[in-house]
Amino acid sequence: MKNRAWIVNATPQGAIRTDHFRLEERPMPVAGPGQLLLRNRMLSIAPAQVAWLKAASYRPQVKPGEIMPSGGLGEVIQSEHPDFAIGDIVEGPVEWQDYAVVGAANVRKRDKARPLDLLVALTGNSGLTAYYGMLEVGRIRAGETVLVSAAAGSVGNIAVQIGKLAGCRVIGIAGGPEKCRWLLDEYKLDAAVDYKAPDFAGALAKACPEGVDFFFDNVGGTVLETALAVMKTGGRVGLCGIVGQLDGEPDRSLRGVPYQLIIRRISLIGFLLSDFTMQQRLAAGAVMRGWVADGRLRVPVHEYKGLENAPAALVALMAGENRGKMLVRL
Amino acid sequence: MKNRAWIVNATPQGAIRTDHFRLEERPMPVAGPGQLLLRNRMLSIAPAQVAWLKAASYRPQVKPGEIMPSGGLGEVIQSEHPDFAIGDIVEGPVEWQDYAVVGAANVRKRDKARPLDLLVALTGNSGLTAYYGMLEVGRIRAGETVLVSAAAGSVGNIAVQIGKLAGCRVIGIAGGPEKCRWLLDEYKLDAAVDYKAPDFAGALAKACPEGVDFFFDNVGGTVLETALAVMKTGGRVGLCGIVGQLDGEPDRSLRGVPYQLIIRRISLIGFLLSDFTMQQRLAAGAVMRGWVADGRLRVPVHEYKGLENAPAALVALMAGENRGKMLVRL
Repeated sequence: MKNRAWIVNATPQGAIRTDHFRLEERPMPVAGPGQLLLRNRMLSIAPAQVAWLKAASYRPQVKPGEIMPSGGLGEVIQSEHPDFAIGDIVEGPVEWQDYAVVGAANVRKRDKARPLDLLVALTGNSGLTAYYGMLEVGRIRAGETVLVSAAAGSVGNIAVQIGKLAGCRVIGIAGGPEKCRWLLDEYKLDAAVDYKAPDFAGALAKACPEGVDFFFDNVGGTVLETALAVMKTGGRVGLCGIVGQLDGEPDRSLRGVPYQLIIRRISLIGFLLSDFTMQQRLAAGAVMRGWVADGRLRVPVHEYKGLENAPAALVALMAGENRGKMLVRL
Repeated sequence: MKNRAWIVNATPQGAIRTDHFRLEERPMPVAGPGQLLLRNRMLSIAPAQVAWLKAASYRPQVKPGEIMPSGGLGEVIQSEHPDFAIGDIVEGPVEWQDYAVVGAANVRKRDKARPLDLLVALTGNSGLTAYYGMLEVGRIRAGETVLVSAAAGSVGNIAVQIGKLAGCRVIGIAGGPEKCRWLLDEYKLDAAVDYKAPDFAGALAKACPEGVDFFFDNVGGTVLETALAVMKTGGRVGLCGIVGQLDGEPDRSLRGVPYQLIIRRISLIGFLLSDFTMQQRLAAGAVMRGWVADGRLRVPVHEYKGLENAPAALVALMAGENRGKMLVRL
C-alpha cells in the first residue's frame, strides 16, 4: 500500500498555482510509540497555508521538498497510544496526503458522531477564530456597528452571523455583487460592500455613516487601509488575516500607521486562535453547536473531493471562489 | 498698548524653520462677556504643533495667516466671568502672543502658588500624557520590560521615570550618545539606545534580549518599525506621537502592518490625553506632585525666554536639542 502526498515544488512568488505542488507516491508510514496512523478524511484549506509557503511566521517557512502541511481530520487505523482507539476521529496536522502519522499529543479527539464538515468548519479553527475574534478580542456589544472583511469566507461568514446574534449592526465586505447579494439575502446583513467595485471607499463610507466600532479584518492591505477611514474615534480593529495581500508581499506596509491611529485613538489588535485556551475552545464549541441546533447559525461549506484536488481547492480559495469553509473530503 | 503675535507665514513642507512664522503687532484684544484677557506667561512647545501646521488631525489644519496656536499659561488681567479674578493663572489655548482673549469654558484655573514650569511640564499635557500612557494605556506591571522612545523628551522622560517607579525594566531610546548617557546616569535606566547610531536595530535587540512587554512610542516611522521586531508575543504598543516623521510625511506607511501584528499578537493602541477625564487628570496630578515632593520624580525643563524666541524654541525641539519639556517664558 502506498501513501500519496503533495510535495511543495517551488516557493510561490506571486499568486499560488497548482504547479507549485507535485503528487508523489511514498511508502506507507508506520506509527511508533505514542503515535497514531491516520487515514485522512478531511483537509481544511485556508489562506494561512499560502502564508506558510512564503515566509517564516508563527511557524517556520514551508520549503520545497516538504509535504504540504494542513490541518484536518483523520480516522485512527493504528494506535500506539492508550487514549486512542481504531475508528477514532482526530483533528491535527494531517498534511496533504492519504495517510498520516501524528504524535498523540499533537491531535485532539473529536466526536465521531458529528458530521466531519461541521467538525472542521464550525468547531475547528475557522468557527472558533470567528467566535474568539468577535466576542473576546472585539468584545462586541448590542447596538455597536461591526464591520467584517472576507465576510463570505470561512471565518468571516461565521463572524457576521455572530455579530447579528449579538444585536450589532453588521456590514460585510466581500468580492463581487453575487457574494454581496448572498450575504444580504441569506444572513440579513445591514449592508454588504463589494471591495472590487470602482468606488469601494465611497460605498463603504455610505454603508457606515456613523462609523465602525469594531472591524474584524481577515484581509489586510488596501481593504484595511480603506476601512481605517470609517473607524469611529476609539474604534477597535481585530487583525485576523491577510488574505488580500498574500498574492503580493505579506510584509507590505500600511498607510497612516501610526498617525491615523493616534489622532482617532484606534487600536489594532493582532490575534491568533492559538492564544485561546482549550477550555475556551470547548465552551465556544458548545455555544456554537447550540446555535446551529436552534437554526440560528448556518455553516456553509465548499467541498472538493479527493486528495488529487487539494491544490485546486487552495487556488480556488485564493481566487475567492468559495462561500464559507473550503474543504477537501478524502 | 499693542499685542505682538506670531503669524503662520507658510505651511512647512519638510523641516520646520523660523521663517515659517512672522511677528506682527496687532491691536490689544478685549474680553467680551464670558471671556478673559490674559497676559501670557508660559508657552508649551510641542511636536504636535508641527503636525497641526501640516494637516488636519484631531483639529483643523492651521493655515497661513492664523496666529500660531499653542497651549500655555496666562495670568488673568481682565475677567468677564465670575469664576475668575485678576491675577489667576489659567491653562489653555493662549497662542504665540503677548496677550490672549479666551473663553472661560476653554481654560482651567491652576494653582498660582506652584512654579509655572511644573504646571506645564508635570501636571500639564506632557506629564499627564506620560502618566496616562504608562499606567492606563500600557497597564504596566512590576517586572515587565518597558521601552520608551524620545526618552529624553518632555513626555518620554516622565514616562521612563514612571516605569522605574512601577518596578519595570526600562529601556529608553534617544538621539545621540550624550542623551543616552544622561538617561543612564540621571534616571538609572536599565539601558539607553541611540537611534542615530549605525546599528540601532542590533543595539535595541541587545538591550531587550527577552523582548518588550510595553512600548511607549512618541516617534513613529522607522523607530516604531524597528521596535516592532523586539516586541514580545502578545506585546502592547501605546501610540502617543510621531515626532520622528513630522519632518516628512505624517501619513507615511509602516512596514509589517498587519502581518507582524498578527503572527506575534501585538496590539497598537492609539491614544490622546483628551480621552482622559478631568477626574483622572486631577488624580494623576496629585500622585505625580507627591512623587516630586518625595524626590522620586524629577521634571527637567528646557526654557527659552521671550515671545520673540518661540519659533526658535520649536525648531530646537524638532532638532532634538531639548532634555525634558521645552518652554518659552514670557
